[in-house]
Amino acid sequence: MSNRQKRFILPEDEIPKYWYNIQADMVNKPMPPLNPATKEPLKPEDLYPIFAKELCHQELNQTDTWIEIPEEVREMYKYYRSTPLVRAYGLEKAIGTPAHIYFKNESVSPIGSHKLNSALAQAYYCKKEGVTNITTETGAGQWGAALAYAAKVFGLEAAVYQVKISYEQKPYRRSIMQTFGAQVTPSPSMSTRAGKNILTKCPNHQGSLGTAISEAIELARTTPNCKYTLGSVLSHVTLHQTIIGLEAEKQMAMAGEYPDIIIGCFGGGSNFGGISFPFMRHTILEGKKTRYIAAEPASCPKLTRGKFEYDFGDEAGYTPLLPMFTLGHNFTPANIHAGGLRYHGAGVIVSQLMKDHLMEAVDIEQLDTFKAGCLFAQAEGIIPAPESCHAIAATIQEAEKCKKTGEEKVILFNLSGHGLIDMSAYDQYLSGNLTNYSLTEEDIEKSLEDVPQVDMK
Amino acid sequence: MSNRQKRFILPEDEIPKYWYNIQADMVNKPMPPLNPATKEPLKPEDLYPIFAKELCHQELNQTDTWIEIPEEVREMYKYYRSTPLVRAYGLEKAIGTPAHIYFKNESVSPIGSHKLNSALAQAYYCKKEGVTNITTETGAGQWGAALAYAAKVFGLEAAVYQVKISYEQKPYRRSIMQTFGAQVTPSPSMSTRAGKNILTKCPNHQGSLGTAISEAIELARTTPNCKYTLGSVLSHVTLHQTIIGLEAEKQMAMAGEYPDIIIGCFGGGSNFGGISFPFMRHTILEGKKTRYIAAEPASCPKLTRGKFEYDFGDEAGYTPLLPMFTLGHNFTPANIHAGGLRYHGAGVIVSQLMKDHLMEAVDIEQLDTFKAGCLFAQAEGIIPAPESCHAIAATIQEAEKCKKTGEEKVILFNLSGHGLIDMSAYDQYLSGNLTNYSLTEEDIEKSLEDVPQVDMK
Repeated sequence: MSNRQKRFILPEDEIPKYWYNIQADMVNKPMPPLNPATKEPLKPEDLYPIFAKELCHQELNQTDTWIEIPEEVREMYKYYRSTPLVRAYGLEKAIGTPAHIYFKNESVSPIGSHKLNSALAQAYYCKKEGVTNITTETGAGQWGAALAYAAKVFGLEAAVYQVKISYEQKPYRRSIMQTFGAQVTPSPSMSTRAGKNILTKCPNHQGSLGTAISEAIELARTTPNCKYTLGSVLSHVTLHQTIIGLEAEKQMAMAGEYPDIIIGCFGGGSNFGGISFPFMRHTILEGKKTRYIAAEPASCPKLTRGKFEYDFGDEAGYTPLLPMFTLGHNFTPANIHAGGLRYHGAGVIVSQLMKDHLMEAVDIEQLDTFKAGCLFAQAEGIIPAPESCHAIAATIQEAEKCKKTGEEKVILFNLSGHGLIDMSAYDQYLSGNLTNYSLTEEDIEKSLEDVPQVDMK
Repeated sequence: MSNRQKRFILPEDEIPKYWYNIQADMVNKPMPPLNPATKEPLKPEDLYPIFAKELCHQELNQTDTWIEIPEEVREMYKYYRSTPLVRAYGLEKAIGTPAHIYFKNESVSPIGSHKLNSALAQAYYCKKEGVTNITTETGAGQWGAALAYAAKVFGLEAAVYQVKISYEQKPYRRSIMQTFGAQVTPSPSMSTRAGKNILTKCPNHQGSLGTAISEAIELARTTPNCKYTLGSVLSHVTLHQTIIGLEAEKQMAMAGEYPDIIIGCFGGGSNFGGISFPFMRHTILEGKKTRYIAAEPASCPKLTRGKFEYDFGDEAGYTPLLPMFTLGHNFTPANIHAGGLRYHGAGVIVSQLMKDHLMEAVDIEQLDTFKAGCLFAQAEGIIPAPESCHAIAATIQEAEKCKKTGEEKVILFNLSGHGLIDMSAYDQYLSGNLTNYSLTEEDIEKSLEDVPQVDMK
């Protein structure tokens, strides 16, 4: 086992200078977001009241393949990028698989997850356009922590609505955001009209990303010089995350291999798209045979059990209508610990790719994700985030198939973050107090009833 | 600000293959540990019942300057080493100092601290010598977590005694150790004679590293095929940690600078020695003018206010007598959050270096450490461990002096670990509920009364 290289890191001058915009290469472009009132396709200007202008243009850009990363953002990336690509010899041995398993270790970013890649970009564009206050939602708190720090970097004030169940399950994340100087409010709250409506209808509402998004958008709309930012789902967020896959592509070349299978956990799609899209480019343009697997929670299975429809991105219906795989914008996911995956819909790019069978999805039960997480922790020494445990579980499934067939497949997954703030979840798992959640077809049909009726042609 | 390199990482083949043994270069060697009964100098064989043999020899080795790192340990180092050397531009700007501040980022090790460097080595030697079970103490839990993982790597069972106050303050660390498969017991416990004695004398004893060491040693002594391991203080632990400074030396050269001041927080001395000794070599051999500053808690100030005496390393008096700066082996430190620094004595090497004025020490109040930690977090995005906050506070003090004088000094400090498991401490600090602890001369004199009387000549 001697002299095997385990970790691949790019020299600073090899860090990508452009993000990759897969929309430009897609044969079937994503359908346009619609104005919910007129059902007219959205123009970038329609989004100006909510987002920084540059982000509105990135969101709808279907022509430019490469978007330059601003120098100020690249300067901040240099503090932690490239993140390492690691050959998981320990995990391979624990499984006994002939597969070669690699993971991109985004957990070593200062914030502990990939979220910082987009937070820095979004905060930068807001600052550049004269914004003074930014607001957002967060589930487990990975995104909120990243945004709180990014706001501090660029001298902005940050207000974060955190999904109530996560706020309670993970008090340390709140402390992290506060240490970075952000204001944190559990959502649903009584501080917005959207929050009040939800709490009136359902007083013990545990919150969801959909709810928190409504509150944050409302704050942005009603506060001067304040913009909203989002941690996943939207195309511009995934664009920023392609830095992960672009680095991984170079790093896999350093390792002298090319992935047969690429796996990411799936909430809104930004970490999955971030690692996948730069490789998928070669599938689209050159017919490269690679499988792309999104790993989502069995209790929030929009890709495997949802419907492809125009739907709102939030609970209150403040967002444009997005063409996406959805469980319905009123779907309230079970209280799994992978708070970052508790979202009813998939981003428009991924949804189109699913429809076109360019990628696949698996859903995984909570107990299986923690079993996978513990195996990984013991084998590699890193406690993975509950979200990342989904990618690990899917990786183990594929590696076990290789064990049966003897195939030496190359599997790459994204370790989107560490789970050090989620130890109460591991505690529950280790003490046998964690459960799976069943979700019947009727549950799903019911939550899909509220999806607006829009022709999908 | 463009194109400034921020992060320096060594290629895998540049990772040091030898640890640096400063004892061989010291003009005044450390005085020998003594058998407490006979007062005779200890031979390596005297330590065999407690430690792996190879470690006993490393402990007392005053002749070999370079000790080869076993290939199996180097193979594990490759997963996370070199750790980055980072230029802290953000912190410099926040202070407004002309000083150049660098930190060695040990927080990105899988375990989140430098402790893994020695845990892997100790577990390896135990495994090699046929040991099946290892035991240790831990304060905040950084060491315990590292040892739990290292044990898993080499197929050993681990039992950890965690200082009770930390066990309660930081339940997540216990979960981390358990996730790695270790057994964790709060100390003092009723499971050992040492623990029972302490609890009988003082039923609400909150624990200390000295107490937990006694329990772990007793377990090792009374269990077949079981060895004890220690996370700091001892010379062989510091030896393993010199990988930090050896890497930093090469990385500072990459940055084109050489440190004027090197700073580490101080508990038993291993992280301080780890970053300092490879540089101190040039002070001893070539007269290089570098200041080495150990930053210790004001509530546990063995270097600034303790006495240089032969004393026990643990509360029960199970260890040999060590010539060290001590507050007395019965000293019970206040319940500060920097659990890893709550130890009454300093390692024998550092103690000799202090005596010879080759290094200096500062003590810092708890509130000042958290103030420094928050400034660092906001400037660099990394939440530092309460222990590391001591090094940061000392760094800020020196950087502020440079601000007054206009000197462009180069300061290097060791970021020994992240503070993500210590967010309750940050919470208390941010909400104004954290305090300093006063320690009078009388307190210290009283705790020094129990130090055995041994001639220091």
